[in-house]
Amino acid sequence: RHSSPCYPAMKPDRKKRVCVLGSGNWGTVIAKIVGSNSLHSELLQERVSMYVYEEELEDGRKLSEVINEHHENVKYLPGHKLPPNVVAVTDAAEAVRGADVLVFVLPRQFVRTLCATLVGQIKPTAVGVSLIKGFDSEDGPLDLVSNTIARYLKIRMCVLMGANNANEVAAEKVAETTIGCKDKRLVPLLKAIFQTDYLKVSVNDDVEAVEVCGALKNVVACAAGFVDGLELGSNAKAAVVRLGLLEMVRFVDSFYPGSRLGTFFQSCGVADLMTTCYGGQRDSRVAAAFAKSGKTLAELEEEMLGGKKLQARGAIGTRTAFEVNRFLKENKMEEQFPLLTAVHLAATGVAPPNAVLQCVRDAPDYTPMVRNLLVM
Amino acid sequence: RHSSPCYPAMKPDRKKRVCVLGSGNWGTVIAKIVGSNSLHSELLQERVSMYVYEEELEDGRKLSEVINEHHENVKYLPGHKLPPNVVAVTDAAEAVRGADVLVFVLPRQFVRTLCATLVGQIKPTAVGVSLIKGFDSEDGPLDLVSNTIARYLKIRMCVLMGANNANEVAAEKVAETTIGCKDKRLVPLLKAIFQTDYLKVSVNDDVEAVEVCGALKNVVACAAGFVDGLELGSNAKAAVVRLGLLEMVRFVDSFYPGSRLGTFFQSCGVADLMTTCYGGQRDSRVAAAFAKSGKTLAELEEEMLGGKKLQARGAIGTRTAFEVNRFLKENKMEEQFPLLTAVHLAATGVAPPNAVLQCVRDAPDYTPMVRNLLVM
Repeated sequence: RHSSPCYPAMKPDRKKRVCVLGSGNWGTVIAKIVGSNSLHSELLQERVSMYVYEEELEDGRKLSEVINEHHENVKYLPGHKLPPNVVAVTDAAEAVRGADVLVFVLPRQFVRTLCATLVGQIKPTAVGVSLIKGFDSEDGPLDLVSNTIARYLKIRMCVLMGANNANEVAAEKVAETTIGCKDKRLVPLLKAIFQTDYLKVSVNDDVEAVEVCGALKNVVACAAGFVDGLELGSNAKAAVVRLGLLEMVRFVDSFYPGSRLGTFFQSCGVADLMTTCYGGQRDSRVAAAFAKSGKTLAELEEEMLGGKKLQARGAIGTRTAFEVNRFLKENKMEEQFPLLTAVHLAATGVAPPNAVLQCVRDAPDYTPMVRNLLVM
Repeated sequence: RHSSPCYPAMKPDRKKRVCVLGSGNWGTVIAKIVGSNSLHSELLQERVSMYVYEEELEDGRKLSEVINEHHENVKYLPGHKLPPNVVAVTDAAEAVRGADVLVFVLPRQFVRTLCATLVGQIKPTAVGVSLIKGFDSEDGPLDLVSNTIARYLKIRMCVLMGANNANEVAAEKVAETTIGCKDKRLVPLLKAIFQTDYLKVSVNDDVEAVEVCGALKNVVACAAGFVDGLELGSNAKAAVVRLGLLEMVRFVDSFYPGSRLGTFFQSCGVADLMTTCYGGQRDSRVAAAFAKSGKTLAELEEEMLGGKKLQARGAIGTRTAFEVNRFLKENKMEEQFPLLTAVHLAATGVAPPNAVLQCVRDAPDYTPMVRNLLVM
């Protein structure tokens, strides 16, 4: 288990080149960190390319040009300077040229198009790091986004997930994050890229579980939002979030056997779940308004997310709930995941939002839950 | 493991008599539940005695008399009627006379005095259920409150802990709770006493871990409060609470080997931790004000807790931190519990409250943590 497939080794004798693919809010924060770290690193080349999907700003200027002239992403991370060695590149193939590490931090629905563009453009020794939340289900069966990228580009993949509110990390407030990486030899490089005084990086080898945590916590946050919106109280909220955590564990136990229960105690697990459910973030806010107002999710996303591109910035949780539900239904396993199922049914109007409470009432007593997970 | 000591069996052929010892906020809520359940139960006698520490109210009436005349604890749970079969009794020995189940729900510092009064007054077959938070350390070494009660009264003990904000349970909002009980034969009786439509009871046999969760979560809530008060952000808060959860696990692993990791996934574990750290409860509010204001804890408790009896209603977390610290110091194990230690040092003015953040920075990478726990 967890032995690396035979990818060609990176050459140890030269500085690595990093490319950040994505320039939204989180992508720009990560580019700021990678750029700063690359300025004075023995392991990293100074120049960091950041792939920018070109947009015309309201004043007619182009986003990439503003970033390269003023070192600020005025659209997605206004008020924070990027180091000058971060260079915005609008051609994806050019951005990845010669890159040893590809950091994927763009909305999930653009991943396949991007990957298709990059086929044949990537160094065969490259390593990918996915910061993307959610699953991929375009081929039908549910799959991890990192698997999709690996399949397209034939590179080994790591993932980075944690309790990482982007604006706080941008403001250099202390946070921690989890990197899942099966190849221990990469740990120093990954820390050189991502770790700072204010962002503590822990690396484990449990890639799948780390990524599943990052995807499912948004579904649980919708359930928490329903409880908020219906004003059912803090006890009920804690009960619903706890049940969600149990279903996250059960999901990994069912579909990613050999993963570790200990991963749920990392930043990607309970910590990200807590801040996503309690920190007033997007999924729980939209879900709360949904439960309270009776408006549709689409209406609320448009209202609450400021008319920004819905597809890119909408609630992740309800879409993930939809995909997870289709997958569970195919496997005849909906009953084993009542909370994940209830979120989907409520989001699609089939059940009322307080169906999540019924899950708490109906939950079986304390029962053995983990059959296929390692402990730590 | 988990085999019951040879206590005399309860007689199966008669209805059990329940006594609630304590009449504060939580005690009165529990008396309301036990009273309602006893009205129509095949397992329970209708009359429930509630031991009330007599107080004179501002209008000169006695608390016990008001409860028995108006079926309302106007001091500690105003606005909620008790069922008429709950009878306030001011003499503890009289309250427990003939009782088969003793529910302990009074502030920890009154436990020994009460127990001393009850020695020789208890049915030898009686079962105790402790709802008391915190440890007992009056004999020097740290011990569980339930052990202290068992030692005094020679009865077997269960514990009940969970994400149970008392006022919400009083308002019959949905919640769940965990009972730790080593004797499976008691499960139907315990459910008959405590479970309602709105309070879901799960029973496990991991008594010590359930009780330790209930004690240590208040210390973690102080750390969370420091982060709130210093406005360090939601990422930092999640990181600190997560580290606190790890130290709770490590504490049980170190001192209660053979307990279960799965217990931390129950209501007494992550759920109670979340709502205590995020639900604006006493420990975290006082700790936040402490970190922000520079006032002493004693001043703040007096200010914030409305001048009510400090000893009974003060912050549990800092006192528990003090006791835990003394115990860890004796065992030369402070370094293995940096967050619990930092809370104590901050509360006593030895370290600044942001010492809890340094714990996050200094925490070791992902490492095996559990050696002596069972999984589920």
